[in-house]
Amino acid sequence: MARIAACIGGGVIGGGWAARFLLGGWDVNLFDPDPDAPRKVHEVLDNARRSLPGLSDLSPPREGRLQVFERLEDAVRGAAYIQESVPERLALKHDVYRAVQAVCPEQAVLASSTSGFTPSQLQEGAARASQILVAHPFNPVYLLPLVELVPSPQTGAQTVAAARDCLLSTGMWPLHVRAEIDAHIADRLLEAVWREALWLIRDDIATTGEIDDAIRYGFGLRWAQMGLFETYRIAGGEAGMAHFISQFGPCLSWPWTKLMDVPELTGDLVDKIAAQSDAQSGGRSIRELERVRDRNLVALLRALKAQDWGAGALLNQADEARRGGIAAGFDMSGPIQTVARVVPSDWTDYNGHMNEARYLQCFGEATDRMMQHVGCDADYIAAGKSFFTVETHIRHLQEVHAGAEIRVESQVLSAGGKKLRLFHRMYDGARLLATGEHMLIHVSLETRRACVAEPPVLKRLEEIAAGHADLPWPDGAGKAIGQTG
Amino acid sequence: MARIAACIGGGVIGGGWAARFLLGGWDVNLFDPDPDAPRKVHEVLDNARRSLPGLSDLSPPREGRLQVFERLEDAVRGAAYIQESVPERLALKHDVYRAVQAVCPEQAVLASSTSGFTPSQLQEGAARASQILVAHPFNPVYLLPLVELVPSPQTGAQTVAAARDCLLSTGMWPLHVRAEIDAHIADRLLEAVWREALWLIRDDIATTGEIDDAIRYGFGLRWAQMGLFETYRIAGGEAGMAHFISQFGPCLSWPWTKLMDVPELTGDLVDKIAAQSDAQSGGRSIRELERVRDRNLVALLRALKAQDWGAGALLNQADEARRGGIAAGFDMSGPIQTVARVVPSDWTDYNGHMNEARYLQCFGEATDRMMQHVGCDADYIAAGKSFFTVETHIRHLQEVHAGAEIRVESQVLSAGGKKLRLFHRMYDGARLLATGEHMLIHVSLETRRACVAEPPVLKRLEEIAAGHADLPWPDGAGKAIGQTG
Repeated sequence: MARIAACIGGGVIGGGWAARFLLGGWDVNLFDPDPDAPRKVHEVLDNARRSLPGLSDLSPPREGRLQVFERLEDAVRGAAYIQESVPERLALKHDVYRAVQAVCPEQAVLASSTSGFTPSQLQEGAARASQILVAHPFNPVYLLPLVELVPSPQTGAQTVAAARDCLLSTGMWPLHVRAEIDAHIADRLLEAVWREALWLIRDDIATTGEIDDAIRYGFGLRWAQMGLFETYRIAGGEAGMAHFISQFGPCLSWPWTKLMDVPELTGDLVDKIAAQSDAQSGGRSIRELERVRDRNLVALLRALKAQDWGAGALLNQADEARRGGIAAGFDMSGPIQTVARVVPSDWTDYNGHMNEARYLQCFGEATDRMMQHVGCDADYIAAGKSFFTVETHIRHLQEVHAGAEIRVESQVLSAGGKKLRLFHRMYDGARLLATGEHMLIHVSLETRRACVAEPPVLKRLEEIAAGHADLPWPDGAGKAIGQTG
Repeated sequence: MARIAACIGGGVIGGGWAARFLLGGWDVNLFDPDPDAPRKVHEVLDNARRSLPGLSDLSPPREGRLQVFERLEDAVRGAAYIQESVPERLALKHDVYRAVQAVCPEQAVLASSTSGFTPSQLQEGAARASQILVAHPFNPVYLLPLVELVPSPQTGAQTVAAARDCLLSTGMWPLHVRAEIDAHIADRLLEAVWREALWLIRDDIATTGEIDDAIRYGFGLRWAQMGLFETYRIAGGEAGMAHFISQFGPCLSWPWTKLMDVPELTGDLVDKIAAQSDAQSGGRSIRELERVRDRNLVALLRALKAQDWGAGALLNQADEARRGGIAAGFDMSGPIQTVARVVPSDWTDYNGHMNEARYLQCFGEATDRMMQHVGCDADYIAAGKSFFTVETHIRHLQEVHAGAEIRVESQVLSAGGKKLRLFHRMYDGARLLATGEHMLIHVSLETRRACVAEPPVLKRLEEIAAGHADLPWPDGAGKAIGQTG
């Protein structure tokens, strides 16, 4: 069948579905009686276009065509997949299904975004119950892969299989929920947290901001990569999950039992959890899992650091506090130490050493630091001027591994007018790891064209250039690839 | 006071504390009656050394000295900060505090890692209640910044302030919990999820692996960067938090009320939440928050992709499925398209364009792809041979922005023996963005020295080199920095 998806309802969730399908190469037929819906969908689509395609290392499929229909029947007539995201009123959903099933193909998937109803409830009075199931996504639908796929016993196996294929084709990850329960799986967990958080706020134990911090500086980071059980499996150590539960069960049960009803931790339940946890972790030892977890956490924390947000913003603040005095003064008679840092675990690649691009990242940090030294700092850039690198020559002389303490010493080869030529040397102790020669041009951020730097910056640069004028010409500077220096 | 921390108890948590302090430049006195404790602490310390120092962009402080003591009294005598992490038995903790307070400085902080007891309970019968409080960390203690700092009314203000300063100096983020409640704040939320998850397992709704997937492919990613309330604030849209609760409250309350007792959503409670949420989000509009969230999610997903884990592994699988046929055959008479992708939002920098290091990352991808074309793939590398880049020359000719579709065309300048010289051109449509010239050396991964490639790889390379021999010599190839042409 043609890759045409009908989205019934164009709110935040319906719009997210439309974006997922369009950017996955599907044509989308939209129906929503709200005249404002197309605008809202386009806003969601703009966000999605800005974020989703870059997640792939391949060029995106041709974006599908979005068509807005005034009649529900016209939107669903030729659709292979129909996603209903109308308000959570059962009678309304039944009305929609009646109208949809009067015209839609019999082999089409008819899926609901509902979190409040089971598929059996949705199927009541339907012409063909077998084509109806729940496909419950998570906001933002265009970025989060999870979608809970919940059939009832009346849902056809071919409907489940077709839904799964459609969702996979949009980059989503369908979690087949084998039993119909209120709120499916993830919302059960979310509601448990929401309920607890409401009590904390009501009782003035914590504010919304404090609760959010308790999540994003702590277990939220763990849960972005491993879930609840694999995290606790590690906490339990080599003795395994059953040991964890037996060790932590008794003491943790105090607050539990005071707060709420909990299932009795029978031997059978402990054994079941332990067996499932063993199966899930695929034979990895706790030591291996710890290292995986730590590499993931470093990568996540550094990702947030680059965005200057959440736990990453904390890291930047800590660096800034420590950096403090460093910029105050430096000796201009020799190369300037611009970087001193440890190679993070996420800078290494499949060859087991620091990836080639990280050499340039590190030299880029050195260049940034040199720019700050001469007064081309955040304020200067905010005022509309900056330096752009236009040419780079790196000699990768030695390998270096995660955990090594490296430093960069920087020399000004020439400076004046619009140009700045820098030479960086990267060391691990006395070992020269790499050199980087870089030509920078001073630009106006308005015109994006070359221009002369502001006088204080120019003066400072020329002072350093004069200080460095008598330094020996570095090995490798001014050389082309393959020319030995 | 000297930066000496005493760690009483050297399990996973006590060892994590020791690592935090040592790598933060504090000396650590360890006491644990278990003869195996020093070994366990060293294992945690190894993990911490591997991960924590790289989080900073500065060189680490000098690592502190770890001393293991046989007597508790000797460990705490000169300590400015004492962290108790012994098993969760109140009588045991009281015994420890009695022994500690008999010798420790009066102005030292005496903090407990407990999740099960309130500070008031810990203070019962203490010589000086004012120096006791809870500092509850999260595993892995050396990576997660969150620590809940919980004083009782009897805890001295100077103890709280000193604890806060000590913890900040190790890079942790103390969340001041203003009220004593069972399980503090984060564990209340964690236990709510744990309780719900145990029911799901007991009732055979889901397995541990399915529950973990429901977390790490969905809300776990959201919670790594924003918490519960800011996430829902966005879901509520421009109308704000009160609107969100009024809109979603009624329908979500069905499963809630069926599952468990919830606080009544009075007007006062809704207003309180809305006001706190407004204060927390600091005047950012929903549209701004959406973009922040999406940039964070892209950065997190790409970080996990580089680790090939969790939701990032899903992205790699999707790429791999789409890549499929591409490697099958290509035309060797012209430059080979090695990369076609969209510039992700996390590749841009403070100048608003793709960062210079990402040019090399992208050329690195092109080089990897070329290597795969000639048979230097994952299997070849696993068998112990690879190519290392030894020299790079990049001309950054044009800016490019997030969302642009870029491609790289790759030309072999020469190949033979141990050397491979590549020339990459990066385009956005017809616009030449950059060129990269790269010298690679074929190496043995065992000796890390140059060696001749295996015959099939060499043959394939020479075929391509012959095919490319008649192509025009590229502009910029063989040139040094500043040489035009």
